[in-house]
Amino acid sequence: MEARPLDALNRSRDKKVLVELKNGRQYLGTLRAFDIHINVVLDDAEERHEGQVKRKIGTTFIRGDTIILISPAQ
Amino acid sequence: MEARPLDALNRSRDKKVLVELKNGRQYLGTLRAFDIHINVVLDDAEERHEGQVKRKIGTTFIRGDTIILISPAQ
Amino acid sequence: MEARPLDALNRSRDKKVLVELKNGRQYLGTLRAFDIHINVVLDDAEERHEGQVKRKIGTTFIRGDTIILISPAQ
Amino acid sequence: MEARPLDALNRSRDKKVLVELKNGRQYLGTLRAFDIHINVVLDDAEERHEGQVKRKIGTTFIRGDTIILISPAQ
Amino acid sequence: MEARPLDALNRSRDKKVLVELKNGRQYLGTLRAFDIHINVVLDDAEERHEGQVKRKIGTTFIRGDTIILISPAQ
Amino acid sequence: MEARPLDALNRSRDKKVLVELKNGRQYLGTLRAFDIHINVVLDDAEERHEGQVKRKIGTTFIRGDTIILISPAQ
Amino acid sequence: MEARPLDALNRSRDKKVLVELKNGRQYLGTLRAFDIHINVVLDDAEERHEGQVKRKIGTTFIRGDTIILISPAQ
Repeated sequence: MEARPLDALNRSRDKKVLVELKNGRQYLGTLRAFDIHINVVLDDAEERHEGQVKRKIGTTFIRGDTIILISPAQ
Repeated sequence: MEARPLDALNRSRDKKVLVELKNGRQYLGTLRAFDIHINVVLDDAEERHEGQVKRKIGTTFIRGDTIILISPAQ
Repeated sequence: MEARPLDALNRSRDKKVLVELKNGRQYLGTLRAFDIHINVVLDDAEERHEGQVKRKIGTTFIRGDTIILISPAQ
Repeated sequence: MEARPLDALNRSRDKKVLVELKNGRQYLGTLRAFDIHINVVLDDAEERHEGQVKRKIGTTFIRGDTIILISPAQ
Repeated sequence: MEARPLDALNRSRDKKVLVELKNGRQYLGTLRAFDIHINVVLDDAEERHEGQVKRKIGTTFIRGDTIILISPAQ
Repeated sequence: MEARPLDALNRSRDKKVLVELKNGRQYLGTLRAFDIHINVVLDDAEERHEGQVKRKIGTTFIRGDTIILISPAQ
Repeated sequence: MEARPLDALNRSRDKKVLVELKNGRQYLGTLRAFDIHINVVLDDAEERHEGQVKRKIGTTFIRGDTIILISPAQ
């Protein structure tokens, strides 16, 4: 059980995660990297819309200040 | 009685809390971790909409700058 | 007479205050804690809408960057 | 003649000022305190709407990042 | 020729400038003070709307983060 | 496999990338430079709209806080 | 070929650039100064709207946080 949020995020490294953005978009991919600003890098990222894959965008850098939440992919 | 807000938040650690976001969404879950940016990690998080469970999203990292308030789950 | 705003806020500690948010919501409660970011903790917080109690949410942490103003409860 | 904006603001201390917010609201009151974030405390604050007093809210803390401008009350 | 923007702004000190805000409003006045946040103080400030004087507001403090641009008054 | 997002971004240097902005616009170009704010410089940048080239704007500096994501051009 | 975005921006100094703002407005002028916040000063600045000169505003200070991109004038 982690005391700090970034420790918890670290446990998701190299696992599939869902990243939800402030503009409503969702990205599914393997969490390769993150930093204290919550900038993240996803491998094999897919943009999702209402559960459907909208497009595949490969290794993607997402700027932290656009992110609402990061949860395990389901 | 705490002098600092984060001390009060610390008393909610490992308890069920309701997190309300700027976009109107609500998340219910067990508060596992938080930091000075109010980034939080919830275990067994559920997205709520008008009192109904909308979806279960497991252990979830929520970026602090999207949060309006954190209160005890009721 | 205080020279600094946080000194004035400190005089409201343990008193009933009204906290107004950028999204138009109002919270009434006892000011237990605040910090330099104006993160606050209210005890016995009530969400108000046009003077009516909308819901009671107990001890509540409110993130400072969502707050417009804090005034004495009336 | 001041070189720094906060020096000018200091000359308004204990005088009646009009504070205009990003959400269009105006507050009239006596400027008691301010800090480098432009957090301010007004005594005997009144919320104004199109020149009319809408409500009196007493000693009020206003978070700096909601403020557009501060001018002498007229 | 200045290498730094604030040097250029300094050349407008004590001259008439037009300050345009993010909310579309324009203020015309004599630039008396500014700081690194681009907080400014205008003397004899007038609020303009489509080239017309809307109201005169005297010595006015404008918070920097609401400002889009500052140009010479014309 | 990088531990930090900027390391991953560095691997895209001198490659064609797609930069998506908060306002919905997309820019395609060769990533020449970036910094910790995610300010970027693209060479031979093109503004895209729904897959069509809208205009060519040459070597372009994009301010980091307007960026949502950076992915490989496809 | 620059490693840092501000180096690239420096190569545009004293050249004609197009500055695009978050509110959709465009300014054309000679880049005289900029800083790490991307505050810029343009000489002989013109406000453009759909390719037409809307007004000439002379030497203009533009606050960095309103800027989306800076590209060579065409």
